[in-house]
Amino acid sequence: MRELYPDGVFPEACPSRTLLDHVMSKWGVLVLLALSEGEPLRWSEVRRRAQGVSEKMLAQTLRTLASDGLVERHARPVVPPHVEYFLTPAGEQLAGHLVPLMQWIAGHAGEVDTS
Amino acid sequence: MRELYPDGVFPEACPSRTLLDHVMSKWGVLVLLALSEGEPLRWSEVRRRAQGVSEKMLAQTLRTLASDGLVERHARPVVPPHVEYFLTPAGEQLAGHLVPLMQWIAGHAGEVDTS
Repeated sequence: MRELYPDGVFPEACPSRTLLDHVMSKWGVLVLLALSEGEPLRWSEVRRRAQGVSEKMLAQTLRTLASDGLVERHARPVVPPHVEYFLTPAGEQLAGHLVPLMQWIAGHAGEVDTS
Repeated sequence: MRELYPDGVFPEACPSRTLLDHVMSKWGVLVLLALSEGEPLRWSEVRRRAQGVSEKMLAQTLRTLASDGLVERHARPVVPPHVEYFLTPAGEQLAGHLVPLMQWIAGHAGEVDTS
């Protein structure tokens, strides 16, 4: 196994590294998980689930994930505007890998000393 | 599924959130993956695999992951000092969930527009 990543896990210039940065950001993970519930969420619902996110960071995170093709934004043509966010099929695949990881973290956070 | 995270994906005060921040940091992921090869790595080997990490960030990342019980540091009593890092059993479990996620990211980074 030693030579699995001899030239770097994800080489710096690699698109994987960019996508990793987007997904693995603190808010990227929380937003993807919030949307992994399967139903479209409004802005305020996403924000409530990703506790602590600022409006600016949430806007930026949703924009990045949308431009990566992981999240889709749908504006219903009503007054007042009703905007919803949901995972694309690629976003759902990704969330399918994120959920077991998050479950492990949730199950082990009490064991490790995170002080 | 709608009510999976009604009070937040990982509530802010929850230890899961702290552990999430440690693991999901850019360098946390890369260091865990580098060490997931299964053999102990020296500082310089970890640094080469986590391309782009500064000495300061690598020191901080390894310290955090060690205090979380995910990484262990072993100093062999030789001159000059020989220090190695490896995953603890908990770190290996975690890496087992990280690897499929990273494989998905590596496989899809070309498809999505990460510009």
